Amino acid sequence: MKALVYTGVKELSYMDRPMPQPQDDEVLVRVMASGICGSDMHAYLGHDARRPAPLTLGHEAAGVVVGGPDDGRRVTINPLVACQACGLCDTGRENLCARRQIISMPPRQGAFADYVTMPPRNLITVPDHTPLTHAALAEPIACGWHGVRLGRGVLTCDLSSARTVVIGGGAIGVGAALSLAAQGVGDITLIEPNETRRAHLADIAGFEVCGPDEPAMPAEGSADIVIDGVGFATTRASASTIARAGGVIVHIGLGEATGGLDIRRMTLQEITFIGTYTYTARDFAETAAAIFDGRLGKLDWIETRPLSKGHRAFKDIRAGHVPAPKVILTPEHDA
Amino acid sequence: MKALVYTGVKELSYMDRPMPQPQDDEVLVRVMASGICGSDMHAYLGHDARRPAPLTLGHEAAGVVVGGPDDGRRVTINPLVACQACGLCDTGRENLCARRQIISMPPRQGAFADYVTMPPRNLITVPDHTPLTHAALAEPIACGWHGVRLGRGVLTCDLSSARTVVIGGGAIGVGAALSLAAQGVGDITLIEPNETRRAHLADIAGFEVCGPDEPAMPAEGSADIVIDGVGFATTRASASTIARAGGVIVHIGLGEATGGLDIRRMTLQEITFIGTYTYTARDFAETAAAIFDGRLGKLDWIETRPLSKGHRAFKDIRAGHVPAPKVILTPEHDA
Repeated sequence: MKALVYTGVKELSYMDRPMPQPQDDEVLVRVMASGICGSDMHAYLGHDARRPAPLTLGHEAAGVVVGGPDDGRRVTINPLVACQACGLCDTGRENLCARRQIISMPPRQGAFADYVTMPPRNLITVPDHTPLTHAALAEPIACGWHGVRLGRGVLTCDLSSARTVVIGGGAIGVGAALSLAAQGVGDITLIEPNETRRAHLADIAGFEVCGPDEPAMPAEGSADIVIDGVGFATTRASASTIARAGGVIVHIGLGEATGGLDIRRMTLQEITFIGTYTYTARDFAETAAAIFDGRLGKLDWIETRPLSKGHRAFKDIRAGHVPAPKVILTPEHDA
Repeated sequence: MKALVYTGVKELSYMDRPMPQPQDDEVLVRVMASGICGSDMHAYLGHDARRPAPLTLGHEAAGVVVGGPDDGRRVTINPLVACQACGLCDTGRENLCARRQIISMPPRQGAFADYVTMPPRNLITVPDHTPLTHAALAEPIACGWHGVRLGRGVLTCDLSSARTVVIGGGAIGVGAALSLAAQGVGDITLIEPNETRRAHLADIAGFEVCGPDEPAMPAEGSADIVIDGVGFATTRASASTIARAGGVIVHIGLGEATGGLDIRRMTLQEITFIGTYTYTARDFAETAAAIFDGRLGKLDWIETRPLSKGHRAFKDIRAGHVPAPKVILTPEHDA
């Protein structure tokens, strides 16, 4: 089969790879759509020691089951494979399982390939009316869906009356904003500094978009929930300024390891900061269902490119030439 | 009356002051016990712009109502006076009311004095068997009680099986540790770097005490709840290391405004950080009840000194010469 393989720092090669062999508890999935994540970019730049070359990246995928009783079943893939035996798995926090694996990180190859293998429990059936390019968004949007669920658990006001702010107009931020809307929030402002990206986002229904210097920028102490979908010191500084007394910061980004939070203000104003990582199986299923029934909107903010041109896509994203929050690679399957 | 007045940086004067006059909604309380808080020390050192000299400090007080239908009633004082009209007050978060006042901060004088005035709703009756020096601990312990209540709200494991760590053996830390025990936690380790203080704390029932370099120091990723009762960058660094995946950091301290948190770890391990400030009326009442019925222990970790010798007490605390986590000043009332 063909795969887009990370072969060294800033090097991706579209090349032949052996067909993956499903283990006893796995099935083979023919990949039809596979999104590029910020963590793929991170690995491509050589910044992720957990993803050494050579490795097939990609973990936001949808496709079709090949062989076995489910042959032909259209599915979206939850890429997190947890142990199902530890205390965290037992309490529905599989995303924190110490033995969790994810495709695109050894020992599991990723989904920038014609085929990938997965346990059937990680597959969710996609209805015929949903394009697989949309179904592949379940993974990135589930990160925001999960964060919203954690944030609402801490909030003492009703979600329908909450004022909310999302920092960052990438797929994580857009997914978080759409998740807020789908979970019942009416007042959502997304902050995005890049004007080109802002223009691209303005057409998405469900939330307002503004730049950091525009009049619509949320005031200090104005938001019940702030979702930081970027995770740099500067975005955390904004988040801890914008959050209101008793409010919540939901922190999804991994931009910088430390700094930025105004901890004195957070203490005096009793602001909660929730570090959030990926999603649970429940979040993934809920997100997929919301994609299928239209609660997450038209999902037309993606750009699709052939998998064979994947390296070009990485370069364009890195150069800031891609206004779409998400690029989805589509394998050609020897077409 | 006599009062211990903050007259300038590092200056406290035991002097005559006019008797306070209760407003329409207030009663006069004869102060019998008034604890020294870290925030009093902060003001005394000239570091709190909200507490300009001249000012009577002190906000951890118990005493006896003078005059009116409640004359002679023994009470402990909730020093936070909230507006009772805003959305935060309406939802039981009076501690975050933007119009809240506290005695010892203008326009309200503090309780290092023979008398103080308070609205009756801020007074809780102290039973005869409870010394007023113990009743005055309701305020500092309520900070920990509140923090534990916020922390348990986020925790997904049962509180009785939780492993917990408290950083700092001052009154906030000790109060938090005792609050954990009173709310059902069995496994509590308090970390205190000062050996003299540790020796003093070792006799308190309900929790273990250890130094940062001792074998009993909690391991990385071991605690369900970490309570930082200090709030320096170094203590926050410890907290974000010790907290386990899915765990909670409850942050009460105001030592330094920024820094220390390992935000990357908190994001990947889904650790929640709760900034907490003081206590609600409910927390204060619950803490007082727990003092009265013995759930917070013998409370023999205090040292009492006469109010007239208050300046000496401030100097001794600052010099590190006071092993007790709390010094309580007792007015002599012209004795």
